[in-house]
Amino acid sequence: MNVSTISPDRATAFMLHAVELAKRGRRHTAPNPSVGALLVCDGEIVAEGWHQRFGGPHAEIECLANAKARGVDPAQCAMFVTLEPCNHHGKTPPCSRAVLAAGVRELYVGTLDPNPVAKGGAQFLRENGVAVHVGVAESACRDLIADFRVWKATERPYVILKMAATLDGKIATRTGHSQWVSGEASRRSVHELRSRVDAVIVGGGTFRADNPGLDARPQNAPDALRQPLAVVVTATLPAADADFQLLARRASETIFWTTQDAADGLQADALRTLGCRVWGLPSSGDGLDLAKGLEKLRSDCGCLRALCEGGGGLALSFLASGLIDEFRLFVAPKILGDEMARNLFTGRSPLTMDEAIALRTAETRQCGEDTLIIYRREAD
Amino acid sequence: MNVSTISPDRATAFMLHAVELAKRGRRHTAPNPSVGALLVCDGEIVAEGWHQRFGGPHAEIECLANAKARGVDPAQCAMFVTLEPCNHHGKTPPCSRAVLAAGVRELYVGTLDPNPVAKGGAQFLRENGVAVHVGVAESACRDLIADFRVWKATERPYVILKMAATLDGKIATRTGHSQWVSGEASRRSVHELRSRVDAVIVGGGTFRADNPGLDARPQNAPDALRQPLAVVVTATLPAADADFQLLARRASETIFWTTQDAADGLQADALRTLGCRVWGLPSSGDGLDLAKGLEKLRSDCGCLRALCEGGGGLALSFLASGLIDEFRLFVAPKILGDEMARNLFTGRSPLTMDEAIALRTAETRQCGEDTLIIYRREAD
Repeated sequence: MNVSTISPDRATAFMLHAVELAKRGRRHTAPNPSVGALLVCDGEIVAEGWHQRFGGPHAEIECLANAKARGVDPAQCAMFVTLEPCNHHGKTPPCSRAVLAAGVRELYVGTLDPNPVAKGGAQFLRENGVAVHVGVAESACRDLIADFRVWKATERPYVILKMAATLDGKIATRTGHSQWVSGEASRRSVHELRSRVDAVIVGGGTFRADNPGLDARPQNAPDALRQPLAVVVTATLPAADADFQLLARRASETIFWTTQDAADGLQADALRTLGCRVWGLPSSGDGLDLAKGLEKLRSDCGCLRALCEGGGGLALSFLASGLIDEFRLFVAPKILGDEMARNLFTGRSPLTMDEAIALRTAETRQCGEDTLIIYRREAD
Repeated sequence: MNVSTISPDRATAFMLHAVELAKRGRRHTAPNPSVGALLVCDGEIVAEGWHQRFGGPHAEIECLANAKARGVDPAQCAMFVTLEPCNHHGKTPPCSRAVLAAGVRELYVGTLDPNPVAKGGAQFLRENGVAVHVGVAESACRDLIADFRVWKATERPYVILKMAATLDGKIATRTGHSQWVSGEASRRSVHELRSRVDAVIVGGGTFRADNPGLDARPQNAPDALRQPLAVVVTATLPAADADFQLLARRASETIFWTTQDAADGLQADALRTLGCRVWGLPSSGDGLDLAKGLEKLRSDCGCLRALCEGGGGLALSFLASGLIDEFRLFVAPKILGDEMARNLFTGRSPLTMDEAIALRTAETRQCGEDTLIIYRREAD
């Protein structure tokens, strides 16, 4: 039988709970996807599991172990799993076999596995008599593995853009004053975010105007917090003796993306003497080939997650090139009301509304006094 | 005893459910507040009630009637009510007496009654041995009666501002093209909103540029839908024979707010001949005294709710005068990225961030593809 025994609304609610379980493992599963699983019996959740770390048991196995510990018989339950059970021998044996062996008769799957090597679990289980329902809370389950999909489909890191603006889209007053646009909770969450990425990227304007350290200073940080690399995108390299935090404190963690010419110059060599890396990137359109820089970040530095913190010019270049996978916009409950105040983005000149860059609103939540809106590519 | 028998988290959840109950009556209780009530026994909601219409039973009475119908004994329950039970004989006898007579021993109150005539119910019940807990989910309960608080504290209608912008704060491209900024669901919800207010207010620029009808066209509208008044705020009155929807179709429902001089002129008389009302308002600062216009709208037309739909200049005047009680901003997942595109608000020139107009984010939700953020005054 393939008739669902659980109502669509209930099934969605269970799957969204599995998504929350999956998120618990989020920081340690890369380059694996985050996955959550649970068992439901008589309308109640009776066992839970999630993929906790790369190389460890998959979510389904954790969930079945949890069932055993709680004396639950999986054969009496429906299983919910955010991602199709894997069907191949990787670091662990195929979950599809384990699910079948446990006697599960009904399986709800959030989304199919985009990994060609691992997929096929749903079909295997169906062929072996399990009622499989695919596509429950699919959008949330797809968004959950947005990073994994990027890692599989491209050679670059997963890229997050973070910006903060007033509700009327301004990032500073007409004089450039910007302390503060967003509230304390938002600013704190940016440090959490930095602690979860391998590189933070800013444009040359932001580098020169703000002289940022780009380090992560989260609350309750472990002593040995690994700091993200700092990437500065600029056609004009700074002098090696200029007064910048990154040069003084973090030279060996700093990478400049610049033109091929600048990377071959004396200024670049002086920066390299400090310990910085200077990468010459080919040009693309009216700027640098950002995709190439990102790919090198992954291939040379093992960077799987990068965070772009602006400014607006660089952010718009990333966005227009389709290189932003997740855009976190903090909207502060403030109005500047000044057409001369600094805009979130500049550099385009669309004449009609359909020329706007279209995104998709994936998630909205409150962050202290601000609203955090998470956007993704429209087609994602 | 005054010790709560229900945990703070559970109490908050019950109260937020009572808020949702209250909202069911929202359209028909004015000028009374919307109130919701429920009874909890052994951690379960066993009876519900809400104020359904002006002059009808209050929420507590509806809830006690519901309990009776369901065979529930209120003496075994805790009662939750979003607003302090009234303590006076108005159109109905005091709820405080009814709650006491029903034997309720524990009462959770969202917020105290701002109405000096009706308040005192919490104290009365406490003096008679009921354990009363005041201030549960207070912010949501206060926001629920934001309209009622305005009606009691001022002589003007409750004013809602509605605007739509791209995520970078633009309402149109540099050419003025604006169809569409927001999505279909947002545009539909604006018609629902118009059907719930007594007047829609726009500035002269919007009137001339968009030639709007300002009527409510909600889905599934009743045949005899009462249309809101249309208010146009402009120092420059249109000619009576100019080609405007409002003059052609809705003259008798249209009110112009203009200068005293303009209201005494021939153009005003010609508009009055068409059926329009033309009100001369005193000046205030560099514009008209909008508060006076609002007060006249309530005193002369019985208007309890008004909706301002912009443009940005008028909206900012209302905001800066503290006359906006609720600001509904639809944020579309689109980027124009053009500093020449039209801004949400203009006319101010703050130099530092602390000169921004500060609001409070009261509620955020998805509206189709857009995000609806509801702001209120910071101190509200």
